[in-house]
Amino acid sequence: MNYPTIPLIDVVAAKQAEIRQNNLTKPRGSLGRLEEISIRLAGMKADPLPMVDRKAVIVMAADHGVALEGVSAYPAEVTSQMVLNFLDGGAAINVLARQAGASVTIVDIGVAIDFDLSLPGLLHYKVAHGTCNMAKGPAMTRAEAEKAVTVGMDVLAEVAEKGLDLVATGDMGIGNTTPSSAIVAVITGLPVAKVTGRGTGLDDVGLAHKVEIIEQAIALNRPNPKDAQDVLCKVGGLEIAGLAGVMIAAAARRIPIVVDGFISTAAAMIAVGLVPDVLNYMFCAHQSVEIGHQAMHKYLRLTPLINLNLRLGEGTGAVLAFHIIEASSRILREMATFAEAGVSDK
Amino acid sequence: MNYPTIPLIDVVAAKQAEIRQNNLTKPRGSLGRLEEISIRLAGMKADPLPMVDRKAVIVMAADHGVALEGVSAYPAEVTSQMVLNFLDGGAAINVLARQAGASVTIVDIGVAIDFDLSLPGLLHYKVAHGTCNMAKGPAMTRAEAEKAVTVGMDVLAEVAEKGLDLVATGDMGIGNTTPSSAIVAVITGLPVAKVTGRGTGLDDVGLAHKVEIIEQAIALNRPNPKDAQDVLCKVGGLEIAGLAGVMIAAAARRIPIVVDGFISTAAAMIAVGLVPDVLNYMFCAHQSVEIGHQAMHKYLRLTPLINLNLRLGEGTGAVLAFHIIEASSRILREMATFAEAGVSDK
Repeated sequence: MNYPTIPLIDVVAAKQAEIRQNNLTKPRGSLGRLEEISIRLAGMKADPLPMVDRKAVIVMAADHGVALEGVSAYPAEVTSQMVLNFLDGGAAINVLARQAGASVTIVDIGVAIDFDLSLPGLLHYKVAHGTCNMAKGPAMTRAEAEKAVTVGMDVLAEVAEKGLDLVATGDMGIGNTTPSSAIVAVITGLPVAKVTGRGTGLDDVGLAHKVEIIEQAIALNRPNPKDAQDVLCKVGGLEIAGLAGVMIAAAARRIPIVVDGFISTAAAMIAVGLVPDVLNYMFCAHQSVEIGHQAMHKYLRLTPLINLNLRLGEGTGAVLAFHIIEASSRILREMATFAEAGVSDK
Repeated sequence: MNYPTIPLIDVVAAKQAEIRQNNLTKPRGSLGRLEEISIRLAGMKADPLPMVDRKAVIVMAADHGVALEGVSAYPAEVTSQMVLNFLDGGAAINVLARQAGASVTIVDIGVAIDFDLSLPGLLHYKVAHGTCNMAKGPAMTRAEAEKAVTVGMDVLAEVAEKGLDLVATGDMGIGNTTPSSAIVAVITGLPVAKVTGRGTGLDDVGLAHKVEIIEQAIALNRPNPKDAQDVLCKVGGLEIAGLAGVMIAAAARRIPIVVDGFISTAAAMIAVGLVPDVLNYMFCAHQSVEIGHQAMHKYLRLTPLINLNLRLGEGTGAVLAFHIIEASSRILREMATFAEAGVSDK
């Protein structure tokens, strides 16, 4: 499969942003990470005064064959029910996107049931009716995984056509912390039990069972840790593949990516495995309650922006982080310099 | 001095909010601190569906006699210069307040120079032309400290008259980390060196000197740790007194308070010392780089909402936290319940 070329970070624009930050009416460095974010934005967007006005969250929905093994506290039909809730505007991601002034794009990339094709607002890009049960064999064929990555790239292109300064990734898929834990375990080599959490709310027995199922899936499928495509198709998910595609296509267009929680960060690991330079265009939004999330951030060497004990997915943490990223851009663009304001410097 | 009565938290409204959170279309608890914040808001505002539409930041500016001792990296005239920058809209707090949809109120409660009384947008409530040098004697008289607290209560009343759902506190005063460190050292009993940081950017020699000056001020003035009014007038500041007044008057009106960084949290300790129940109406916005800030949060038993390595003051961290508090309110008010959305519960 051919992936697009990822442009280099513009170090000149980043340096110009840094110089400006040092001349704004505040002690140097006193806005901490807001300053760093604005400098990264400038480098990503090749613009010393980057704007983040046009914001979007892309939510990929898919089902998981492994849900049959009882790895989730919720029944599998919740995936499709939540898609309808997204379309009605009643889910958390709708509320938070309205607040942040971000558009919401909902994609059926692999939900088990067929939606009415006339359903307003849903993008129909179903690659399969959910994945196969990875505890019994590979979750997807290589062709399906590639098709799902391509869907993600196409959806990003579609959203970007209307103008896009910042994109967040979101997921919906009952059972999808299971493939996400499998991905982080395989790629980092950490024991499954160290990177597997309670998802939507498993009890201790449920959690122990989930760990066993993931260990079984890895033992059976033997994904190659050095081959992200192999990991993706054997123990991944369709929405994870799609989100990896979104990230690759965003980086190719110099659009900064705000990676949401545990599932999105699994997708980020796959994206970086497929196309390493995508990492230069990523912000990690938040620290999830899922225990494997820290290992993902450590692997990607990214520090999350917020920590509010979230564990919902849908892109909710990423859209919350939009406010912080927008603040960093506005500070850089709108504050007066010492000279402009007639304020004495140190 | 007589302080207003602080109403009790409405536990019925808080319980109603909690029940609603548990019925919204997400796994229970999956929005972590957003859920907790919304429940606290409901209790504060005695409203099971609290709104935070009308937001304001009140910035109190004052000078400090102790600045003569060379405790700041910036010259004292920056206090008045920054007041003019605030009025022109070029400072960080202006930028972040515009983003958050919050009004900005700038108060001269004790700047050393006299501003033109016709200056648009500045509230003239000067109690004194800065404090006295606390390294040589008390920073203020008891009457001045009381007057400054009253100014804060009056300013909050003025801002609240136009309608106010959420208020942030901000400060401007070259030298004001010095009284703030003194306050936390006296009230907690911790050694001065453990709660004194670099402020706007002191080097190691400057920091050691600042610690000595604070130790000298405490040894000379002997503030009584059990008497917040005594601590305030001996080693406090006019803006710190004013902000304590803002907090007391806000709590009296059931208006939630978002406490900014190191100086604002020193004011919060004074406010709680004067009127303990004010604490029930406080959110701590962020974890500052100033090393004494954690000791303040520990004392108040509040966990900051964000940690972005900020150390600017002006209310910047508090106004950034507005987005998170607004998100919590919108989630509670706008999300669909399981029943409304036809989504299966666990």
